[in-house]
Amino acid sequence: MGKRKVYLEDIALDEAWRRFNQALTTAGLGASLPGATESVPVADALGRVTAAPIWARLSSPHYHASAMDGYAVCVADTAGATETTPVRLSLVEEDHEEPAPQRPAQPVNTGHPLPPWANAVIMVEDVQRFEGEIEIMASVAPYQHVRPLGEDMVATELVLPANHRLRPVDLGAVAGCGHAVIQVRRKPRVAVIPTGSELVSVEQASALEPGDIIEYNSIVLASQVSEWGGQPTRWPIVPDELEAIKAAVLEAATEYDLILVNAGSSAGTEDYTARIVQEVGELLVHGVAVRPGHPVILGMVDPEKREFETSATAGSHPKTAKRRVPIIGVPGYPVSAALTGEIFVEPLLARWLGRPPVTRPQMPATMTRKVQSPLGDDEFLRVAVGRVGERTVAAPLSRGAGVITSLVRADGIVRIPRFSEGVHAGEPVTVELYRDPGEIERTIIAIGSHDLVLDLLAQCLAERAPGMRLSSANAGSLGGMIALRRGEAHLAGSHLLDPETGEYNLAYVQQYLPGRSVVLVTLARREQGLIVAPGNPKHIRDLADLKRSDVRYVNRQRGAGTRVLLDYRLGELGIDPATVQGYRHEEVTHLAVAAAVASAVADCGLGIRAAARALGLDFVPVEWERYDLVIPRKHYESTMLQPLLALLKDEGFRAAVRELPGYDPSPMGQVVAEMG
Amino acid sequence: MGKRKVYLEDIALDEAWRRFNQALTTAGLGASLPGATESVPVADALGRVTAAPIWARLSSPHYHASAMDGYAVCVADTAGATETTPVRLSLVEEDHEEPAPQRPAQPVNTGHPLPPWANAVIMVEDVQRFEGEIEIMASVAPYQHVRPLGEDMVATELVLPANHRLRPVDLGAVAGCGHAVIQVRRKPRVAVIPTGSELVSVEQASALEPGDIIEYNSIVLASQVSEWGGQPTRWPIVPDELEAIKAAVLEAATEYDLILVNAGSSAGTEDYTARIVQEVGELLVHGVAVRPGHPVILGMVDPEKREFETSATAGSHPKTAKRRVPIIGVPGYPVSAALTGEIFVEPLLARWLGRPPVTRPQMPATMTRKVQSPLGDDEFLRVAVGRVGERTVAAPLSRGAGVITSLVRADGIVRIPRFSEGVHAGEPVTVELYRDPGEIERTIIAIGSHDLVLDLLAQCLAERAPGMRLSSANAGSLGGMIALRRGEAHLAGSHLLDPETGEYNLAYVQQYLPGRSVVLVTLARREQGLIVAPGNPKHIRDLADLKRSDVRYVNRQRGAGTRVLLDYRLGELGIDPATVQGYRHEEVTHLAVAAAVASAVADCGLGIRAAARALGLDFVPVEWERYDLVIPRKHYESTMLQPLLALLKDEGFRAAVRELPGYDPSPMGQVVAEMG
Repeated sequence: MGKRKVYLEDIALDEAWRRFNQALTTAGLGASLPGATESVPVADALGRVTAAPIWARLSSPHYHASAMDGYAVCVADTAGATETTPVRLSLVEEDHEEPAPQRPAQPVNTGHPLPPWANAVIMVEDVQRFEGEIEIMASVAPYQHVRPLGEDMVATELVLPANHRLRPVDLGAVAGCGHAVIQVRRKPRVAVIPTGSELVSVEQASALEPGDIIEYNSIVLASQVSEWGGQPTRWPIVPDELEAIKAAVLEAATEYDLILVNAGSSAGTEDYTARIVQEVGELLVHGVAVRPGHPVILGMVDPEKREFETSATAGSHPKTAKRRVPIIGVPGYPVSAALTGEIFVEPLLARWLGRPPVTRPQMPATMTRKVQSPLGDDEFLRVAVGRVGERTVAAPLSRGAGVITSLVRADGIVRIPRFSEGVHAGEPVTVELYRDPGEIERTIIAIGSHDLVLDLLAQCLAERAPGMRLSSANAGSLGGMIALRRGEAHLAGSHLLDPETGEYNLAYVQQYLPGRSVVLVTLARREQGLIVAPGNPKHIRDLADLKRSDVRYVNRQRGAGTRVLLDYRLGELGIDPATVQGYRHEEVTHLAVAAAVASAVADCGLGIRAAARALGLDFVPVEWERYDLVIPRKHYESTMLQPLLALLKDEGFRAAVRELPGYDPSPMGQVVAEMG
Repeated sequence: MGKRKVYLEDIALDEAWRRFNQALTTAGLGASLPGATESVPVADALGRVTAAPIWARLSSPHYHASAMDGYAVCVADTAGATETTPVRLSLVEEDHEEPAPQRPAQPVNTGHPLPPWANAVIMVEDVQRFEGEIEIMASVAPYQHVRPLGEDMVATELVLPANHRLRPVDLGAVAGCGHAVIQVRRKPRVAVIPTGSELVSVEQASALEPGDIIEYNSIVLASQVSEWGGQPTRWPIVPDELEAIKAAVLEAATEYDLILVNAGSSAGTEDYTARIVQEVGELLVHGVAVRPGHPVILGMVDPEKREFETSATAGSHPKTAKRRVPIIGVPGYPVSAALTGEIFVEPLLARWLGRPPVTRPQMPATMTRKVQSPLGDDEFLRVAVGRVGERTVAAPLSRGAGVITSLVRADGIVRIPRFSEGVHAGEPVTVELYRDPGEIERTIIAIGSHDLVLDLLAQCLAERAPGMRLSSANAGSLGGMIALRRGEAHLAGSHLLDPETGEYNLAYVQQYLPGRSVVLVTLARREQGLIVAPGNPKHIRDLADLKRSDVRYVNRQRGAGTRVLLDYRLGELGIDPATVQGYRHEEVTHLAVAAAVASAVADCGLGIRAAARALGLDFVPVEWERYDLVIPRKHYESTMLQPLLALLKDEGFRAAVRELPGYDPSPMGQVVAEMG
């Protein structure tokens, strides 16, 4: 009984592209689309790609133009003029074609054409005006203050090459040399077909049943297509029925350049896409050795043959008569779907649009944690990236294909090639950035205990200091200390109770950051308690009830401040952790603990009041604790952290924290200790 | 008689912004717009900016979901299962709520909810199926192949902060946690009003009179506004009449958030914008010490007062009752207009949209030429940037405010601050890049003689090798040699005749690039001759006619191959250059020479046939010459140059060159010499 499904292949990425390319080339779609250009008015062409080179139709300027307000003159007439021997010129009218008077001077405004006899302009400020005359006190050089014909563009000159993405200034140049309409590559039309009987649209999200899944992959895929220059159409959700999906595919094939069928690309009982592609065209690839995103389908669909052309034409174009449409079966997990877009859809659109594929800025970084990756698959690891002091660090995010927030939070991707078994902690890696490198420089990295006030701080920071970002990773209080020791974070949230002293955090800083210069700033006091089901059906009153055989507990991970608190209090109560049911069931955030209670997997868990409130649960108070930010002094004093530290003193922010259930902001911003 | 107009100020950029900011803040427009948000369906929100933080409405998944196709089981029931002691579980139906049989197992597909009694999933591949039972050969861990409730997002969690620009994956997360509609910052409405009686729309460009100017600044400004997230409206062209412009401004003020009046911002007789702003509002700044872009106007317009609110409301909001609309008078020269957009419009839109202002990637480079810049003005110098070997070089482009192609060709901007007098050749500078740094890496830099085949090469390269670029700067043949010597170019076009040998280029390479390893590759043979007016009215037959007193010549600059050729032939003919009329009138391209003839400034000039043809002029052949590319061997052998060298052997490209009048591509691609 093998672990691999035999009917889903494991084709290397480059081999998958090779097969796809071959089929595209055979179908005449390797480099461009049939009827690949369209005319658009120049004013509507922003962001489009030129389909042909733009040669200047007209010169610009198309005449010798005055570059100043002043007087058009003939250079020879100004010879010898100085402050002591001024020269007088006779004013002539604008329509004077012949230089009837000697030494003529004609008033011109900026942009006006020079009369044929003139070859320079004198600025209005540089002349004395008299009745019918002007006086000048300097001779002038030929073409002074003149924009000669063709200064900017000369007719027939190349203004822009083909395959150029049009920017605002490009449109100016194109219009300036006489083009009112411009040939651009037409936008590839992409059909996005969501399939699945379990899917409901986001408009119906207010009444979900267990098993219902909000369909949003089509929104992500369609937005990707738009962003990359295509023209997407989202199909209505098609149920998991072979004939219905096949009909949608065939309908799309008549009009679209590319078909994306989302989900049903794997090899389960309700995965029909591969079968449909086989029936209506050619299945090229089913399963690519990438993760996430393994169950990808690449194929070509043959739409119903068009009406027969005259036999003569048909005979002369035997290959072009048969239109084929590429189809991609996109995996259903959201991260897989989005990455399939990046890996397969974007390069295809780039080619059809005649532009280079999107390349992301690359940044060297140091991996914070060991990552094991299976041999044979190219892994696209999402990472958070931050610049902490002199180091750029990359921290792996959730690898779950269903965790779309891992892509939202990702600052970039680290590719782990298929011949590698992973990356060691401390190993240098190259990150392909999703964000501007400047944004990485403006990101404050918090690693440590999870707290809702950090969320609030993140959003207030984004409002008050646009461009600044607070990126929080939940690693528990101890995890935060360790991250600070390794230089991987600017600050760590911590609420570690010292059993010896009953004091928070100080002892741990001394133990984990010995000799470091560190400042402890209080974020808030917060209420810890037992999160229980609504109405507290098991009548749980305090921690002593964890001994009860009918109470299933849900715990936090080792190193979490809440876990330290629990262990301390259990010790005081003389309760052996081994006797607490569910003690080994660990979650990594307060909200995950609450979720476990909400779904009746557990009867209670220690956590903060806000987490209980968030999921509509009840709360049995245990005690108030202090939550501090541990900040190395060099970061505490850095320019970057000042907007965040200022928020801790801000009345509006304090008021917002006071509204969170179970929070007391009164000590917020107090420096508890400066150490080292 | 001062050179400065006293009525146009010289306000430093930061002081101009200070005044503008103060007025904006007083009008309540310092950070956001009134009624600054709107609701859009999540599927339409790509690229928009969140107006408020997005908190998760629902958890995702909102139930414990199977992550695989398989069987939901209770972990305890699997204890002890091994290959030698398999365990059998009883199959139950999907709607079975109570675990009636002992050791139940329920079939689940990926995404299906777990029954309440289950806490793990076994993959379908890992079981043996029997009638009513399955057999397993390994125990399982809690939550194996389960996506627990809230794995991705937990209700109430912060998903995205305010002021976040929405990317495709963000839309997925927003929809996935239950938001069908999202609050985004509304797009600022910007009125773009072109003014000027000399302006004609690009649609009328086919019938231009001297003095007519194609109006395209409004296209550039409107496109900039779109690109930066605003909603532009282009007004029809308004003639230079004070009342007409004032009416347009007042109309725009009733509905728009920002008014751009293009041209009329200086202090000439027909420059009305400053006066209008004074009449209908407040003139804050008239003239900013930047170049190009000096005659900028910043002001506030007071639209007619709205209907009175009830006195109670009016009393309580005395400051908000008066709406003011910022107005920017944008200079008329196209480069000035585009830079005014970047300097003043973009930061304002950024603020209103709650995003950080656009920052461009910065790149250190070495300036190739000395640039003098006046004290007192911040200069925005357009530069071409290239990576030649190990060096990144920045070459100044045209500084003319009317030369829009200098912005089209610019790879970036070097800011020369107002307290500096310029930059020396070889000085390190920082370039703010208009292009992706990767694009700079893929740019081939040609400096040297100008030739139409280089234009053709540039456009074919862009077609054949998307992402590759050929950037040509015209510096004459000798200028190209010098650029190669300084390591500022990958190749130089050259057609320098050696008077001693009658051979092209070889002697010059030996002289200017002694000891360098260089390859000479022929681009083409081309026909040089005298470009004359249509019908050759002065009956010019050959170079001997340049002696004639009725023939005005237009020359090329020193160092140009055509200039060398002329001087050589004049020497042979025994003609003293001082006797050639117009010998000192220099132009830097063949097309500029032709333009001088076309505009009757000169009667003839030596140049290539294609330039004569381009402007409909006649051509008196003189001789065929060879035009080579001089390429240092290290570049000749580099990967980067291969697509270009391949084109020289390409039949399609040769055919295109053969169609250019006066070109013979037969020697194209031949290696003339390998030196050093």
